Amino acid sequence: MAYPRYGGGLGNFSNQMQMGQPMPGTGPAVLPGGYPAYPAYPDSYSSAGDPMWTYFTAVADQDGEVDAEELQKCLTQSGISGTFSPFSLETCRIMIAMLDRDYTGKMGFNEFKELWAALNAWKQNFITVDKDGSGTVERHELNQAIAAMGYRLSPQTLTAIVKRYSKNGRIFFDDYVACCVKLRALTDFFRRRDHMRQGVVSFIYDDFLQGTMAI
Amino acid sequence: MAYPRYGGGLGNFSNQMQMGQPMPGTGPAVLPGGYPAYPAYPDSYSSAGDPMWTYFTAVADQDGEVDAEELQKCLTQSGISGTFSPFSLETCRIMIAMLDRDYTGKMGFNEFKELWAALNAWKQNFITVDKDGSGTVERHELNQAIAAMGYRLSPQTLTAIVKRYSKNGRIFFDDYVACCVKLRALTDFFRRRDHMRQGVVSFIYDDFLQGTMAI
Repeated sequence: MAYPRYGGGLGNFSNQMQMGQPMPGTGPAVLPGGYPAYPAYPDSYSSAGDPMWTYFTAVADQDGEVDAEELQKCLTQSGISGTFSPFSLETCRIMIAMLDRDYTGKMGFNEFKELWAALNAWKQNFITVDKDGSGTVERHELNQAIAAMGYRLSPQTLTAIVKRYSKNGRIFFDDYVACCVKLRALTDFFRRRDHMRQGVVSFIYDDFLQGTMAI
Repeated sequence: MAYPRYGGGLGNFSNQMQMGQPMPGTGPAVLPGGYPAYPAYPDSYSSAGDPMWTYFTAVADQDGEVDAEELQKCLTQSGISGTFSPFSLETCRIMIAMLDRDYTGKMGFNEFKELWAALNAWKQNFITVDKDGSGTVERHELNQAIAAMGYRLSPQTLTAIVKRYSKNGRIFFDDYVACCVKLRALTDFFRRRDHMRQGVVSFIYDDFLQGTMAI
C-alpha cells in the first residue's frame, strides 16, 4: 500500500481493470506521486444538438445553473441510472458539492459535463464488477471497483467504507455512486493541499472542516 | 477566531446560549485547547422502566444492536422529532457512523443513550434559534446554533456548511441534525489526532479517508 498513489481517474478505467488479482498493484498505472488527469472538453465544444445540453437546460435556472433538486430531475430524465433506481437527493447534493468549488450550491454546464463523464465511467465500472447482474455489489466487488479506479486503501479503510455504504451487506448503485463521489471529492481536497505529493497533509481545524463538511 | 476552540458540547448549551451577539466569543466557555466533556451515564444506571430501553429493544437485533434502518424506526417511534419530519435514513446512517468506533455499522444501547442525549440538546438548540417556529432555520440562525455549541468557524466554512445543508436558503430539522452529527463526528476524529491540542493535525491520506468517508 503506497500512500501517495491516489486514485481519482474518472474516465478510462474500464479498459484497465484487472479483476481477481490481489488489490495492491491492480488497477490503472498511476505515476508515483502523480494523479491521473481528468478529461476536459476542448474549447471548440459546441452544445448544439448535444442531448446533455437538452437535459440540462430543461431544468436549469435562468442563471444557467442547477441545484440538487434540479440535478436529480435532470439525471432522472437522462436515464443515466438505466435499470437502477434514480439517484437520491442526498447523492445529488454531494455531486454538486464535489464540483462546487465556489460554494454556490449549484452546478453550471461545464461542471455538469465533468460529472456526466464521471458517472458514465462509474456506471461502467459497476456493471463490470456486478458479475451476476443483481444490481448490487458485495464487499469484495466494491473493493475491486475502488482498486480499479486507482485508489490504494488499507483494509481498515475499505471496511469503514463498506459498512457505511452497504445495506445488509450489499451496495446499491446509488450508494456506490455516492461512495465514488465522496472518494473523489475528498481525494481532490487532500491533493490540493498535498503540495509535495507525499501523501501527508497538515490541516488546521477550520480548513479540515471546510473541505469535509460539505461532502 | 481561535482555532483550537473546538465545539462538540452535547448537552447543556441551552442554558448557555447568548443570542444576538457577534459570533466570535459567544457560546459556552471552552477551556483554551480543551474540550467539553460528554455526559456519561453512571455505572448504576438501570434500564428497567426506561422508555428509551423499550424503544431500543423493540427494534434491536438478537445481538442487542441496531442498524440504520432499525435506528430510524426506533427514533420515529420514540417521537423525538416531534412536529418535525422523521429522520431520513441517510441521517440515521451518519448517526451510526458518528459513534461506530469499531466499524460494525451498528449501535449498541450505550451508544444509543449517548446519541439520545445529543439529539435532545440539538433539538432544544434548534427550537431556541427558530424564533418564528417555522420548522426551519436560516443561515444566521444556523450560525448562532453552531456558535452556541462552542464551534468557532470561519465565515467561509460556515458558508460551505449552509450551502450543503439548506434547501432554498432554509435548513430543515433533519438536515440541521445531519449537520450537527457530522460536525461532532469530524471534530471528534480531528481531536483524537490532535495530541498537542494545537488545532493542527498531519494526516496521511489513508487515515484521512478512514475518518471522513464514513461520516
